[in-house]
Amino acid sequence: MSAQTEQGYFTEENSAEVVIGRNAACTDERLKEVMAVIIRHLHAAVKEIEPTEAEWFAAIRFLTKTGHMCDDWRQEFILLSDVLGVSMLVDAINHRKPSGATESTVLGPFHVADAPVLPNGANICLDQKGEPMVVRGRVTDSEGRPIAGAKLDVWQANDEGFYDVQQKGHQPDFNLRGVFETDAEGGYWFRAVKPKYYPIPADGPVGQLLARLGRHPYRPAHLHYIVSADGYETLTTHIFVPDDPYIDSDAVFGVKASLIADFEQRDDPARAADLGVGNPFWEVAFDFALAPR
Amino acid sequence: MSAQTEQGYFTEENSAEVVIGRNAACTDERLKEVMAVIIRHLHAAVKEIEPTEAEWFAAIRFLTKTGHMCDDWRQEFILLSDVLGVSMLVDAINHRKPSGATESTVLGPFHVADAPVLPNGANICLDQKGEPMVVRGRVTDSEGRPIAGAKLDVWQANDEGFYDVQQKGHQPDFNLRGVFETDAEGGYWFRAVKPKYYPIPADGPVGQLLARLGRHPYRPAHLHYIVSADGYETLTTHIFVPDDPYIDSDAVFGVKASLIADFEQRDDPARAADLGVGNPFWEVAFDFALAPR
Repeated sequence: MSAQTEQGYFTEENSAEVVIGRNAACTDERLKEVMAVIIRHLHAAVKEIEPTEAEWFAAIRFLTKTGHMCDDWRQEFILLSDVLGVSMLVDAINHRKPSGATESTVLGPFHVADAPVLPNGANICLDQKGEPMVVRGRVTDSEGRPIAGAKLDVWQANDEGFYDVQQKGHQPDFNLRGVFETDAEGGYWFRAVKPKYYPIPADGPVGQLLARLGRHPYRPAHLHYIVSADGYETLTTHIFVPDDPYIDSDAVFGVKASLIADFEQRDDPARAADLGVGNPFWEVAFDFALAPR
Repeated sequence: MSAQTEQGYFTEENSAEVVIGRNAACTDERLKEVMAVIIRHLHAAVKEIEPTEAEWFAAIRFLTKTGHMCDDWRQEFILLSDVLGVSMLVDAINHRKPSGATESTVLGPFHVADAPVLPNGANICLDQKGEPMVVRGRVTDSEGRPIAGAKLDVWQANDEGFYDVQQKGHQPDFNLRGVFETDAEGGYWFRAVKPKYYPIPADGPVGQLLARLGRHPYRPAHLHYIVSADGYETLTTHIFVPDDPYIDSDAVFGVKASLIADFEQRDDPARAADLGVGNPFWEVAFDFALAPR
């Protein structure tokens, strides 16, 4: 009597065990373990849902359309992972931070590798459109000791909710991007404009799913940072604008309470002139604390 | 204080609840319920697996390649559903049969709608290649009472493991296909050739996954049937060849013990001549019992 006959053929009751049992000869132990978890949850979900054959085929069609939407410029499966909270969950699992260290959030698709290195105080807004903003803070270790020479790679959307790479020709290249280095006291500062919320790409199957779920596609306004220093874990995160209409409903679940920055509106012509920005302007303060490597 | 703030932002601990909570405004109650199950199992699976970011991206790439493999002629997501046992599970859930009725199995991609209607005893093997086979049996209700005028739509692979539609030009059109009707005693019979095992399409991402899992891509030899009669549930099923090398390891989990037919090899020139087949030949007996609608 063969192994299969002893185990029994596939039935509604033993379905997951039979399918997992088929991977017995797999020599990649990690793949085998991962597939066992996937098969177990997949079968449990199907048993709870009890899909009709039409519903099963609707799921096949959705996955197919999602695949067909992907090309060199658009990754609809990452978008699906984002709106289902999977990207943030994978980020959380891979970047559990010790107490005192700044929390991470997702990288997103708009980072550009070779942004210009700029002196502190530089204005990264190259087209002067939007509400002036001065951002400052310190980079420290998780005990609050300043880290000199830490690198901050910053990028953000403009006043209309678009990154430069989404509006080639309309925005200057490298608009609202720059790499800064902390001074001896761990300090950094730069000038920019207040960013605006924006939608994730909503013209594909994922956007259609959000609409059917009664969800909007917006991300609340934020600045992206990659903060790095020798001997510390590199931190990929955002800081968020607190008064954004979508601060409590980020389409990709990127907001953490600890990443909501102070945004203070100033009406002070003398100070504005001193800082080299128009009046009124926004002052933003945010400190980053890096975990040891 | 907003709903989100009360509920709290996304964390590793509350991730599924936060994502499910976002669908609160969904007016399609079924979709809402289905997505809640999917999100709960998806997050539970990610938490058990704890994928690295590279592993997460490998999953994104796999799904993308699977989508890109799909076109009008190839449905790689259905193939994925098949090899993970999901197609058979959906079939099982949708076709729970009362005691006494023949069990169902998956339709598969090779059914053709307009096969020729033939008299009982017709030979559906149009090119005379393969080992002769005579198939006979009865169609009854679940209590064994004959059903006259029941329709049997039959199709099968040839002696080389290919359906006619896979070998256009090489096999005659409608080779090994036919629609038969039961006589007054519920009986049917036809002539054909013994089918052979064959691989599911293995040149795409699903075939690569099977290889990495140490699994073969073969389906054991079988005949497909759709059996229908007024007042009864239409039955989509296969009957299987018992001595097939893959009978215990069907790549798509379609085998059920009750669907393994009797295949007897006969060496009887007189009877072969009487039946109009070459000698030796196979005699196959299988009765179908339909559930009431």
